[in-house]
Amino acid sequence: MMRLSKYFLPILKETPIEASVVSHQLMLRSGMIRQLTSGIYNWLPLGLKVLKNIENIIREEMDASGAQEVLMPCIQPAELWKKSGRFGGTDDLSEEMLKMKDRHGNQLLFAPTAEEVISELFNNNTQSYRDLPKNLYQISWKFRDEIRPRFGLMRGREFLMKDAYSFDIDKEAALKTYKTMMQTYINIFNRLGLKAIPVTADSGSIGGDYSHEFHILSETGESTIYYDRELEKHLNSNFDLELFSKYYAADKDKHNPKECKVSEENLLVKKGIEVGHVFYLGQKYSKSLEVTLQGKDGQLIYPHMGCYGIGVSRLIAAIIEASHDEKGIIWPASVAPFSLGLINLKAEDEKCNAACMQVINTIPNVLYDDTSDSAGAKFAKMDLIGLPWQLVVGPRGISTGMVELKNRKTGEKEELSLETAINKLRQC
Amino acid sequence: MMRLSKYFLPILKETPIEASVVSHQLMLRSGMIRQLTSGIYNWLPLGLKVLKNIENIIREEMDASGAQEVLMPCIQPAELWKKSGRFGGTDDLSEEMLKMKDRHGNQLLFAPTAEEVISELFNNNTQSYRDLPKNLYQISWKFRDEIRPRFGLMRGREFLMKDAYSFDIDKEAALKTYKTMMQTYINIFNRLGLKAIPVTADSGSIGGDYSHEFHILSETGESTIYYDRELEKHLNSNFDLELFSKYYAADKDKHNPKECKVSEENLLVKKGIEVGHVFYLGQKYSKSLEVTLQGKDGQLIYPHMGCYGIGVSRLIAAIIEASHDEKGIIWPASVAPFSLGLINLKAEDEKCNAACMQVINTIPNVLYDDTSDSAGAKFAKMDLIGLPWQLVVGPRGISTGMVELKNRKTGEKEELSLETAINKLRQC
Repeated sequence: MMRLSKYFLPILKETPIEASVVSHQLMLRSGMIRQLTSGIYNWLPLGLKVLKNIENIIREEMDASGAQEVLMPCIQPAELWKKSGRFGGTDDLSEEMLKMKDRHGNQLLFAPTAEEVISELFNNNTQSYRDLPKNLYQISWKFRDEIRPRFGLMRGREFLMKDAYSFDIDKEAALKTYKTMMQTYINIFNRLGLKAIPVTADSGSIGGDYSHEFHILSETGESTIYYDRELEKHLNSNFDLELFSKYYAADKDKHNPKECKVSEENLLVKKGIEVGHVFYLGQKYSKSLEVTLQGKDGQLIYPHMGCYGIGVSRLIAAIIEASHDEKGIIWPASVAPFSLGLINLKAEDEKCNAACMQVINTIPNVLYDDTSDSAGAKFAKMDLIGLPWQLVVGPRGISTGMVELKNRKTGEKEELSLETAINKLRQC
Repeated sequence: MMRLSKYFLPILKETPIEASVVSHQLMLRSGMIRQLTSGIYNWLPLGLKVLKNIENIIREEMDASGAQEVLMPCIQPAELWKKSGRFGGTDDLSEEMLKMKDRHGNQLLFAPTAEEVISELFNNNTQSYRDLPKNLYQISWKFRDEIRPRFGLMRGREFLMKDAYSFDIDKEAALKTYKTMMQTYINIFNRLGLKAIPVTADSGSIGGDYSHEFHILSETGESTIYYDRELEKHLNSNFDLELFSKYYAADKDKHNPKECKVSEENLLVKKGIEVGHVFYLGQKYSKSLEVTLQGKDGQLIYPHMGCYGIGVSRLIAAIIEASHDEKGIIWPASVAPFSLGLINLKAEDEKCNAACMQVINTIPNVLYDDTSDSAGAKFAKMDLIGLPWQLVVGPRGISTGMVELKNRKTGEKEELSLETAINKLRQC
């Protein structure tokens, strides 16, 4: 239980003018984040709780898929990146790379991604095909020096990302891992209460036959995606890549009206926010970074790699874009920072207090509004921060043992006895 | 449950020559970490699990103390640090600071600590004395460009730290918070199975009357500390700062034989590893960074601050220094990466397999050695990684329903029926 009177939750009544998209506005207003400098944010207690809830869902699903968590450093030596050809040069990654020198003059960088380091780590610590398959992931802060950071966490510079890298003996095994990751991503997005559409991505030079981007549908998305209406039916817990691949889905760059055979009626054109990708990399990095293993016949082999990213901090913004109303955020229960907002309308009233204590002692993870604010201010604040349930305890109602339970999403309110309300909340 | 046959756990049989202290040697040998470049490490699955266990104990105790978790960025603008006078200049912090410029030429740095950012964040988001007291903490990666990184995580460059910053209305309230933090630190170290001695620290220019450093006793420690033998009796769950302060305890720099009244017999001189500190900062930063609040009488006041650090990654090294033998690490149960090492001596034997499955289905968080390694190699590996319990299932024993349970710390082995062993492990 957290008392609102003690919580570091600086609410803003006005919409900050610097925020142009609703997720950025609501994250600032609800006291989740504060900008430190362009594209770099402080996380306040409410925002950090949501971030950790999302992290944990991703972690659980990655672990369940057989992937293993590691952690690579933020600061990495440039040498390795020169070897892969991604340091210096003129590609996007190099321009966005935050570079520096240490006191001894060694060139370093803040990791924007980790193909180089994971390849070296894997190469130095495995010997033979018996060590395959392996899928290693991390959840860590990355930095990309965006030329124009904007939309809050949607296009920030320092951001939290889950990145995974798989190593398989051949293409066939790698594509099996790829399929497992597709299923894992669909599980993750389902648990987050999101509909994420995987579309064929422009794989460009990073290469390989298989590559999909996951987009959350949202009017404010920067991407435009085209897909067959039927496709949505197959994004479930028994995801079938073969079946799914029969349906058309492409982002704007990849969409070719001439090749698209979906009827106009069935072709959906939507705005999306890219929150994840899965890539079959083949032997690109294992060859350039000389990752070798002893194969079954004793010859050295280059493993087939895949990489799999989710923008964890961006995902928060995407969830808010997809789930809010004019009053504020509406959190899916799985990521809500608290399960219940408990509003005590008269914190100095003995009966109100006793009822609230009964709730607190029974229901885990309650945010308790014990302040002396007006009822209106209390209701507005709870609607803004968007917990799934609100329970209102006031002197009039409690004199006959009654409280009010509100569902944030539907807006539905019920007058209930305290006991009934508690029982109902325990089942949520 | 994790199967050793699939786990990314690269064990080293030989002690790496680059590692001079036992914690560094054992962390490399047991596959917990790998160096990426000088003073910068990759965390492998086994090491990361321990790191997260320690993090969670610290988080639970900090939350219980009333502190609230936030997260500040790694990359911070130099401006703020110029304001506090800690950027440029010639103090240690400035020399160790990793500095860089972004693509627009703005001067940035990788945070070595966070007084500047928390002060600004607090100042911009509080109005009056009613918002006090507040104690905000984070667990995050810091960077200090040590001139000579060594001893693995003990003196690394990128390291995980818990740092907390408190804000109080006056000195009296700040010292109350200080006392709460002393108790919290003692609770944390007790839960980690460590004896940490708080000694009067050289507070130097950072200033204030109250400052203590916490040292883990270890032969390999870089500090020398002097303290009254009696003091150890008072480092318990009912810590009393007044009582404690009566006993002599000082580090080498602060120790003055002339002022020390402890008899030679009672004065202990030990080597220690500094793993934490608590500091009363007074108004140093609130004044230089202009942190103001409306006081009770309407006048602006500068809050009294404190700061409280724990070196989370260094703590792992300190635990190993304090708890190991010639065979390997001995983890305290609270931080062990797995609760039990289950050794199947014949993974292709039906009865052995069935017995192991029974254990796995009953006991949480088991590391299951299902490999075809020799018995000797299996025992050595389990001793090296140091899980609190080992359970050995072999074809001979299991034919009469018997298994062997070993306590890693005492080395004690027991022949037990499978059921008795499971029941015993469930109670641990």
